[in-house]
Amino acid sequence: MANRVYNFSAGPSMLPEEVLKKAAAEMLDYEGTGMSVNEMSHRSKAFEKINNDAQANLRTLLSIPDEYDVLFVQGGGTLAFAMIPLNLMTGSGKADYNITGQWAEKAYKEAQKFGDVRAIASSKDDKFTYIPKFTAGDLRPDIDYVHVTWNNTIYGTHYASVPDTGGRTLVTDMSSSILSEKIDVSKFGCIYAGSQKNIAPAGLTIIIVRKDLVGKAGENIPTYLDFKIHAENDSLYNTPPAWCIYIAGEVFKHLLERGGVEEMERVNREKAGKLYAYIDGSKLYRAPAAAEDRSLMNVVFVTGNEELDKKFVAEAKAEGLDQLSGHRSIGGMRASIYNAMPPAGVDKLIGFMRKFEKENS
Amino acid sequence: MANRVYNFSAGPSMLPEEVLKKAAAEMLDYEGTGMSVNEMSHRSKAFEKINNDAQANLRTLLSIPDEYDVLFVQGGGTLAFAMIPLNLMTGSGKADYNITGQWAEKAYKEAQKFGDVRAIASSKDDKFTYIPKFTAGDLRPDIDYVHVTWNNTIYGTHYASVPDTGGRTLVTDMSSSILSEKIDVSKFGCIYAGSQKNIAPAGLTIIIVRKDLVGKAGENIPTYLDFKIHAENDSLYNTPPAWCIYIAGEVFKHLLERGGVEEMERVNREKAGKLYAYIDGSKLYRAPAAAEDRSLMNVVFVTGNEELDKKFVAEAKAEGLDQLSGHRSIGGMRASIYNAMPPAGVDKLIGFMRKFEKENS
Repeated sequence: MANRVYNFSAGPSMLPEEVLKKAAAEMLDYEGTGMSVNEMSHRSKAFEKINNDAQANLRTLLSIPDEYDVLFVQGGGTLAFAMIPLNLMTGSGKADYNITGQWAEKAYKEAQKFGDVRAIASSKDDKFTYIPKFTAGDLRPDIDYVHVTWNNTIYGTHYASVPDTGGRTLVTDMSSSILSEKIDVSKFGCIYAGSQKNIAPAGLTIIIVRKDLVGKAGENIPTYLDFKIHAENDSLYNTPPAWCIYIAGEVFKHLLERGGVEEMERVNREKAGKLYAYIDGSKLYRAPAAAEDRSLMNVVFVTGNEELDKKFVAEAKAEGLDQLSGHRSIGGMRASIYNAMPPAGVDKLIGFMRKFEKENS
Repeated sequence: MANRVYNFSAGPSMLPEEVLKKAAAEMLDYEGTGMSVNEMSHRSKAFEKINNDAQANLRTLLSIPDEYDVLFVQGGGTLAFAMIPLNLMTGSGKADYNITGQWAEKAYKEAQKFGDVRAIASSKDDKFTYIPKFTAGDLRPDIDYVHVTWNNTIYGTHYASVPDTGGRTLVTDMSSSILSEKIDVSKFGCIYAGSQKNIAPAGLTIIIVRKDLVGKAGENIPTYLDFKIHAENDSLYNTPPAWCIYIAGEVFKHLLERGGVEEMERVNREKAGKLYAYIDGSKLYRAPAAAEDRSLMNVVFVTGNEELDKKFVAEAKAEGLDQLSGHRSIGGMRASIYNAMPPAGVDKLIGFMRKFEKENS
C-alpha cells in the first residue's frame, strides 16, 4: 500500500486519491482504446470526448454562462500575465491593477510592457497582509479593465466579495481559489487560473472569458497568445496538454459527484474555520493576515521565532504533515488546504500544533 | 491485463510500456515521498532531482556540448515558432526559412510577424514530397539564422544530412525525429522539439540553444518567451509541466539503458528499411516521398484509391494496428514508427499489408 502524506504544498498540490488511482489503473489502456491518454492523438474521438467533457463539467461546476468561452492553454500564470493585456488592453490601452502580493505585482509589471498600466493601491508596506479596498471612484474612467489577484497564496489573503468597478471589466487571477467557493462568473470579464492547485497537475491554464472580449488582440502578437485562436478551435488549435486536461476532467467529475462547488465551499469553510479558530485561541501561533481578508485555501501562521518555525516544519514532516514551510520570501508556516486536502488532514495538523505548543511553551 | 494496440499515431504517440508501468506504480507515492509527481512542489528536492536528471540524461543522449543551454518550456511548436524569431532574429532582423510542409510554413508565417523573413525554396507544388535542397549561396548574407523543419511528419520526408549554411546560424524544428538518430548538435544554433512524439506526453517543448544566442531578446517581449529567463532559472522560473518532465526523464533513462541514440538509430533504420522495402516491392502500395528524403519516423503510403485506403485503415484498426490514417490534409496512410514502436509492430503491419494486398488485387 502507498504510504501517503498530508501534502500542504501551495502548488503543485494534493489531488484526490480516487482520481490518482483511476489514472494509474487506466495508464496502459484508457477505456478499451489500447493506449494511455499520454499516447493519444488529440484528434482522436476518445480525446475529443475527454476535452469536451472537461469543458462541459467545468461549465456546470461554475455555472459558466453561454456568453463565455472556456479555453485550455499552456504557460501558467506567467504566460497569462502577457495574454491578458495583449488580448484585453486593446481599447484605450489602459488598465488598473490592485497590488496584493508578489504575483499581483508580476502581473502588473508584465502588463506595463504593453500599455498604460497603473496600480490602484498596494499593501506591500504591510507585507501584503491585507487586501487594499478600492471603489469605482479610485479607477481611471477609460481603462480597458481592472485586474485583481483573487487569492494571494503567499500571504494567505483573499477577496471576500467582488469589488465594485462601476461597470468596468473585471479580470482576475483565480489560480489558487478556483472551484473552492461559489463565484458569480457573470461579474467578471475574464477569470484565469493555473491548474496546479485545485484542478490538475501543472501545465494547464484555464481561461474563462466573455465572448465579446475575444478577437480584439493585435494581428502581430504570437499566435499562441491570441484567445481567438483557442476559442475558435475548442482549445485544439495545436496539441494540448492532454494529460492535464484528462486529470482536470477527472477532478471535475469527482467534484460533481461530491456535491459540486457549493459542498466544497462548505467543507473548505469548515476546514479553514477550525484552523484559524485554533490559531486565534493559541498562545504560540499567530496568523498575520487581516481577519476579514483571510484565505480559505492558504492559512499562513508564525510563532514569531524563526528557529521554532523551522523546528515546527521539520517535526511536522516527520509526522506525515509535509510542505508546511511558508514561502521563501516571508518564512513561517503555510498550510495550503485546497479541495483535495481531506478534513482529517486539517484535524491531524491541529492535533500536531497543539502537541507542539505544549512541548514548546 | 491491458489489451494494448500498436499505435501508429503521428503524435501524441506511443510511449515505452515499461515507462508507463513505472509511472502507474509510482502514481500514489513517488520514491517514498508519499505523493505523486503530479502533486509535487517544483521547489522540492525530489522534483529538483527529476528536473536535473532529465536534463543531464538528455545531454548524455545527444552529446550536447556545455556551450548549450537546455530549456524545458510549454506551448508546443506553435509557441516556439514565435519564441525563435523573438529571441534569435534580433541582429539584422532577417531570417531565411526552407518550406518543406505545413509546419515549416506555419513557422515561416509566424516569424514574418517579427521581421524580414524570406522563403529559400518550397516543395509545395509537389505536395511537399521532397526536401528542396539549398546551398550557402542561396541564403541572404546578413540573416540572423536559417530555419529548417528536420522531419516533416505529414509527408514523411526528412533531411538526410545537415545543410551547409556557410557559417550562418542553423535553427531546426526537430519535433518528430529528436532522439531517433545521431545528430551533431554543434552544427546547430538552436534545436527545438515538442515532446509528444519521441519524448513524453504533450505539454513540454525542449529547446537546445547555444549560450551566446541567449539574452538577445527585446525587453518588451512576454517574459515567458525569453530564453534567458528559462536558462537562468534551470527552467524553474515558473511552475514547469512537471509530469511531462518526469515522463521525459524516464524515457531518457530507458533509452540510455537500451544503448542510447546510436542503438535507436540502428533499430529505426531497420524498422523503416523493412517497411519501405516491402512498399517498394509491392504492386498495391506506393510511398510518394522522394527516396533520398524519406523519413525514418513517418512512413507515408497510398494505394492510389481513396476508398481502398479507407478500407485499409479500418481493417488494420480491427487487427490492433491503430491510427494509420494519413494526415487529414493529404489522406492515404501513414505509419509513424517512433522509438517506442517495437519492431514487432512493424512486422505485424507488414504482415497485414501483405494479406490486404492479396485480398484486394
